[in-house]
Amino acid sequence: MAFESLPTHSDVVAAAKRLSGLVRKTPVLRHDALDALAGARVFVKAECLQETGSFKIRGATNRLLQIPEAQRAAGVVAFSSGNHAQGVARAARLLGMPALIVMPADAPAVKVEGVEADGGEVRFYDRNTESREEIAEQIASERGAIVVPSFDDPHIISGQGTAGLEFTAQMKGAGETLDHLITPAGGGGLASGLALALEGVSPGTRVWVAEPQGHDDWTRSLKSGHIEKNAPGTRSICDAILTAAPGDMTFAIGHRLFSGGLVVSDPQVKDAMRAAFRYLRIVTEPGGAAALAAALACLPDDMKGRKIGIVVSGGNVDAVEYAKVLMGG
Amino acid sequence: MAFESLPTHSDVVAAAKRLSGLVRKTPVLRHDALDALAGARVFVKAECLQETGSFKIRGATNRLLQIPEAQRAAGVVAFSSGNHAQGVARAARLLGMPALIVMPADAPAVKVEGVEADGGEVRFYDRNTESREEIAEQIASERGAIVVPSFDDPHIISGQGTAGLEFTAQMKGAGETLDHLITPAGGGGLASGLALALEGVSPGTRVWVAEPQGHDDWTRSLKSGHIEKNAPGTRSICDAILTAAPGDMTFAIGHRLFSGGLVVSDPQVKDAMRAAFRYLRIVTEPGGAAALAAALACLPDDMKGRKIGIVVSGGNVDAVEYAKVLMGG
Repeated sequence: MAFESLPTHSDVVAAAKRLSGLVRKTPVLRHDALDALAGARVFVKAECLQETGSFKIRGATNRLLQIPEAQRAAGVVAFSSGNHAQGVARAARLLGMPALIVMPADAPAVKVEGVEADGGEVRFYDRNTESREEIAEQIASERGAIVVPSFDDPHIISGQGTAGLEFTAQMKGAGETLDHLITPAGGGGLASGLALALEGVSPGTRVWVAEPQGHDDWTRSLKSGHIEKNAPGTRSICDAILTAAPGDMTFAIGHRLFSGGLVVSDPQVKDAMRAAFRYLRIVTEPGGAAALAAALACLPDDMKGRKIGIVVSGGNVDAVEYAKVLMGG
Repeated sequence: MAFESLPTHSDVVAAAKRLSGLVRKTPVLRHDALDALAGARVFVKAECLQETGSFKIRGATNRLLQIPEAQRAAGVVAFSSGNHAQGVARAARLLGMPALIVMPADAPAVKVEGVEADGGEVRFYDRNTESREEIAEQIASERGAIVVPSFDDPHIISGQGTAGLEFTAQMKGAGETLDHLITPAGGGGLASGLALALEGVSPGTRVWVAEPQGHDDWTRSLKSGHIEKNAPGTRSICDAILTAAPGDMTFAIGHRLFSGGLVVSDPQVKDAMRAAFRYLRIVTEPGGAAALAAALACLPDDMKGRKIGIVVSGGNVDAVEYAKVLMGG
């Protein structure tokens, strides 16, 4: 474990300077009806409105900017179910680099098309019979390309954390300070980045991760103090945050800075997607709405009445799937 | 015709000061795929993310702030298919005033519920057999309440125009100037307010209105130089912008400042709603997407390759109706 290279608050600040003008400042939205459902004041950072439709462009761009000019022509390789894929493809395009993304054959079409629209090459793999890590490593070594990890990397983490600096500044601009921040978590790159950001600029804000049932690795890991894995094969609609376990680096940060995990069911996630549609008029993907679901459906009693920041982390969802959710499916 | 009371650019500037902190600064969004579809650079001002889900809160708040304290207890009355209704109900709540809204019996449920959530009283009328103007006037005279017109009023127009000052400032912040601005138009309160705003801060930007087929009153009026009416009974999915004719005041402004009208079909509007879903991750209602539809489906040749500002004016749409559009219906 590369504890010596753990990112810090200053890395997030440096990433924010680096990303200035390259990523979007996403709005903070709210609605009385969400406050009423949560029993708290809810402020939503809408990263679904970010370039590429998720926060992933932040970390990917910050990571790719570290690659020396001389190495850029060989390109990058990443593996991802879709949002990191799109972030890497876009960042590579911005820097004029080739990008190959290893994606599961069942990735949402909208995510595959997003990668291809940015000129990314897609290599599909079978989730059940192939190892995406092996495929990525092999292609990278053939091409001399750099593998861009999706979360367990100091530059990825620092980049994602810039959303936390922005969120805090927007809240301060409105004269408010968050008591709690809840964010969706798969590998924990966003969550640990946000926690590092807030540690420096909003140290009184407690950070929580939201996860789908059956993928509550963070919740269990934070309780036990060790990295716990998910049982393989558990299904959830939250494709964006189905990771086997917290990363070494993200867990080292999360263990120190996270207050705990909140676990949501698929029906609760769908309710949150419908609430975001109706009250905020934003499109959310299932994994992106997990933290909102936690706030609306299972906010712990001692968080009631407080100011709760929510990150809606992505909005890349196939139209027909989304329509089914709106229809109550 | 009250030409002596036509609002000017300075009224829009004054409205912006008055509304500061009371309405949201909505983001400007873009996507390469929209540029490719339009054959131009497209910048979308997402007023669907505004408080109450449409720009209408701007004009309503600006209008209600003109009512002297002593008259506020008697409240306000408005008639509207929904977005102005919600704007007035919210503005009235902000100022502690009672509000009654006369709404068509077939108004989208989400709009009726929006009014009621803000404490507005709803009186339904039958579009075919009753006059909403008469109902509103009668209730207003019984209560001593003030009727808040939905577009033909200098304070309404100035308030809506604040979106144009914001849009221009956001574009300047990104180092860009719009060549053209296209906005949905029903009565023309938003369009004429935007034109007044741009006249002062972006005089090189040409302003166009987008309308549904069969409701092309603005397009014909701008051509003939006189107010032209729509044939009664023509249907369109664009419920928010189905007005009988331009207003006297909005036409006086539009006749001087608008470059012309662009007419879109219902299928083109649905395509635009799907494009906004997919590429911007915002929820748009049919009328709100009319200008985006014009840009994507029928942009005039001499606007190709230019910088086109689009106002997406609202996102209040019933979930099932929206789902049907996403499914391709």
